[in-house]
Amino acid sequence: MTVGATLALVRAVRRIRYEEIPADALEVARHCLLDFLGCALAGSREPLTEILVESVATSDGPATLIGRRERAPWQAAALVNGAAGHALDFDDTHTLMSGHPSAPVVPALLALVEKEGARGADLLAALVAGIELECRLTALLGPGHYGAGFHSTATVGAFGAAAACAHLLGLDEERWLHALGIAGTQAAGLKSAFGSMAKPLHAGRAAETGLLAALLARGGFTANPCVLEAPQGFAATHAGGELRTDALDRLADRFLVRDTLFKYHAACYLTHAAIEAAGSLRTHHALAPERIARVEVRVDPSLLSVCNVAEPRTGLEGKFSLRATTAMALRGDDTADPATFTDARMADPGLVRLRDRVAIVPVAGTGATRTAVTVDTDRGRFVAEADTGVPAVDMRAQRERLEAKFLALATPVLGRARAEALATAALTAHQLSGAADLLRLVRAG
Amino acid sequence: MTVGATLALVRAVRRIRYEEIPADALEVARHCLLDFLGCALAGSREPLTEILVESVATSDGPATLIGRRERAPWQAAALVNGAAGHALDFDDTHTLMSGHPSAPVVPALLALVEKEGARGADLLAALVAGIELECRLTALLGPGHYGAGFHSTATVGAFGAAAACAHLLGLDEERWLHALGIAGTQAAGLKSAFGSMAKPLHAGRAAETGLLAALLARGGFTANPCVLEAPQGFAATHAGGELRTDALDRLADRFLVRDTLFKYHAACYLTHAAIEAAGSLRTHHALAPERIARVEVRVDPSLLSVCNVAEPRTGLEGKFSLRATTAMALRGDDTADPATFTDARMADPGLVRLRDRVAIVPVAGTGATRTAVTVDTDRGRFVAEADTGVPAVDMRAQRERLEAKFLALATPVLGRARAEALATAALTAHQLSGAADLLRLVRAG
Repeated sequence: MTVGATLALVRAVRRIRYEEIPADALEVARHCLLDFLGCALAGSREPLTEILVESVATSDGPATLIGRRERAPWQAAALVNGAAGHALDFDDTHTLMSGHPSAPVVPALLALVEKEGARGADLLAALVAGIELECRLTALLGPGHYGAGFHSTATVGAFGAAAACAHLLGLDEERWLHALGIAGTQAAGLKSAFGSMAKPLHAGRAAETGLLAALLARGGFTANPCVLEAPQGFAATHAGGELRTDALDRLADRFLVRDTLFKYHAACYLTHAAIEAAGSLRTHHALAPERIARVEVRVDPSLLSVCNVAEPRTGLEGKFSLRATTAMALRGDDTADPATFTDARMADPGLVRLRDRVAIVPVAGTGATRTAVTVDTDRGRFVAEADTGVPAVDMRAQRERLEAKFLALATPVLGRARAEALATAALTAHQLSGAADLLRLVRAG
Repeated sequence: MTVGATLALVRAVRRIRYEEIPADALEVARHCLLDFLGCALAGSREPLTEILVESVATSDGPATLIGRRERAPWQAAALVNGAAGHALDFDDTHTLMSGHPSAPVVPALLALVEKEGARGADLLAALVAGIELECRLTALLGPGHYGAGFHSTATVGAFGAAAACAHLLGLDEERWLHALGIAGTQAAGLKSAFGSMAKPLHAGRAAETGLLAALLARGGFTANPCVLEAPQGFAATHAGGELRTDALDRLADRFLVRDTLFKYHAACYLTHAAIEAAGSLRTHHALAPERIARVEVRVDPSLLSVCNVAEPRTGLEGKFSLRATTAMALRGDDTADPATFTDARMADPGLVRLRDRVAIVPVAGTGATRTAVTVDTDRGRFVAEADTGVPAVDMRAQRERLEAKFLALATPVLGRARAEALATAALTAHQLSGAADLLRLVRAG
């Protein structure tokens, strides 16, 4: 690579054109849009969102807040909508980014689209550009960034939001560099905030930062145009200094948005493979919970410190309990619905009885997203495996699952008819002549 | 220290009461207020401020933008006013903070005061609390923070703004910890942005971050309440991990705001001692430039890489030229006026002639803020020394100099009568029953 890392990164994504994006990548981009909207609608009623709205909404603001009646200034809308979208930690993820790609990018784009207008196709292309940049930047930074304590959704997300907005605005190469320079010198977010409301706030601030960066850069605002590789630049201060410049060549011409993963269960992502495996056993073998004698869940040892609460007492603890989530899946509980994870359910005698028959068995080398579940019943032994680290191959199946998830999240806020209309609009976003039509559908009635 | 560093920091400043602040510290706080307003008024017409206003102002925003007709949302006003205040790099400094203490703190407080109302005395006490926190936090972090590439005005400034607003809001200890947690996980700003518009942006974003953090914390928003000392917390990610916890004991019961330094010349701070020494020679000995044969400026060798442009061609280069600034002082040029530093002046034959007689002599161990100037004339040799790293002892003299500086900066924007009224209001801010009265005076007419 002969050009600087920041410029190389810009050149990898700036010229992405809607017409040249493969159909399956565009389909995933629509899934990202749909899934973000569903998560943000459900998150719009969370206490953290209420506090944010109280602090930044203005009665006569121009911008739509998802799932709310209040309005807000443009930057504030990106902030609130981003935080709402990540509030339930139910939004999409990407292993290459080590984070949540859509929550910083989509709300920045929605504010920009509502402010300045854009076709749906341009929104989708900008969304793809933002996610492509996030993944490539994380690869450039290497594992030292997340490892040092930085929350990629916040930091890399600010760059991604800036890139997405720069793409939608059609900035020239020099303005892109300044947009990333502004985003990079303001990108922030610590993993040590996990477990508090500040984690979702990070996604919102990243969206706000990226939107501001692109708008300022368009106006001629300057920053360091080599923010990544400059002496004491972002790589030096935030990733141990070593930029893996070969990563961009390795990823050239690939559409990484294709590898976005979606959450279908309102629990820690590392419990999902066990839930999927247990759920498939239940469905295929018509298992009755009371006839289950013993369950064995084989997982990577790394999961024990993350989601192995043996006897969860609260709904939140339940989300981090492999025993409880496996038992819930075997009983047919709706693990896709955040409302399922209540304190009361964790104390349900039937659930507790089955949970107590679940044994978690660490097996070295399993891999964090792979799980095997064995169930012993009076009819014999059944075994199933699942790996939730593999992107879907069947786009139609993914769309159907996401649509069901979306309707479950959106209906309580919008009502069924409007939720369905919004799902249709998101899944046919490429046909919208005005992408701001989406905003008209996400307001609380 | 038996409590955590974050809590110890909060306990060092949260209980500061107006009535218990020494009179000279309060006088300096008023100087900070006056000086910030003057810098922000002059900065309100800079291109970077124009772009910011264009990007974030709303026609019906509730908050005042200093020196402008436009209005903005609360957070956006803190952002714009903070950037305007640091736009000329003419605002106050503090050696213990390694940064500019007022530019992140005052605009956050002004927005809060306009939003919620407060007495002038409470504004001053909150300003003192913010600056005290900035200085103590920098001491806690040690030199590794600035040394690694972080711009303290941005990062420490975000904590300072949060603390000032938390003080004005009277938050309890737990809410203070969350306010600092929110500010800390969003604090950002790289020195590698120096030389671009992003440097002043840092001050504005710090103000905005701090204001948001305090408002969210008041509403019950949570963050990591041990943001400094947590594993992978702010100290680990931003200062090499080692918190100098003895610093708080060492600084206990001192009012560090007292040591704020003010800029009286619109050039690099490290040229100021030479300007002061040369100016005093001119005044005391009635030196005529044409009779000066040679000038020797003895400085610390560390200055050579910062402000030793030998033959400056632009006004900006002139601000970083010990030879030119010394010659300007000997000629009686108004180095206090940013408009003095033009490209044309740098090419002025009389200035060039005198400049070329100035020799810069590095003397190890001089100290960055101390300079000796020797002038050889046909009447003999004259020598003067100055040290601009020593806080003023004579508060009245400091007030008079700052008032003159303020009127020079504010008059072109507000007109003489209103500039004088604003100076009076700032210098008697403790008597204001409504501190928001200041905002009514800073709007462009």
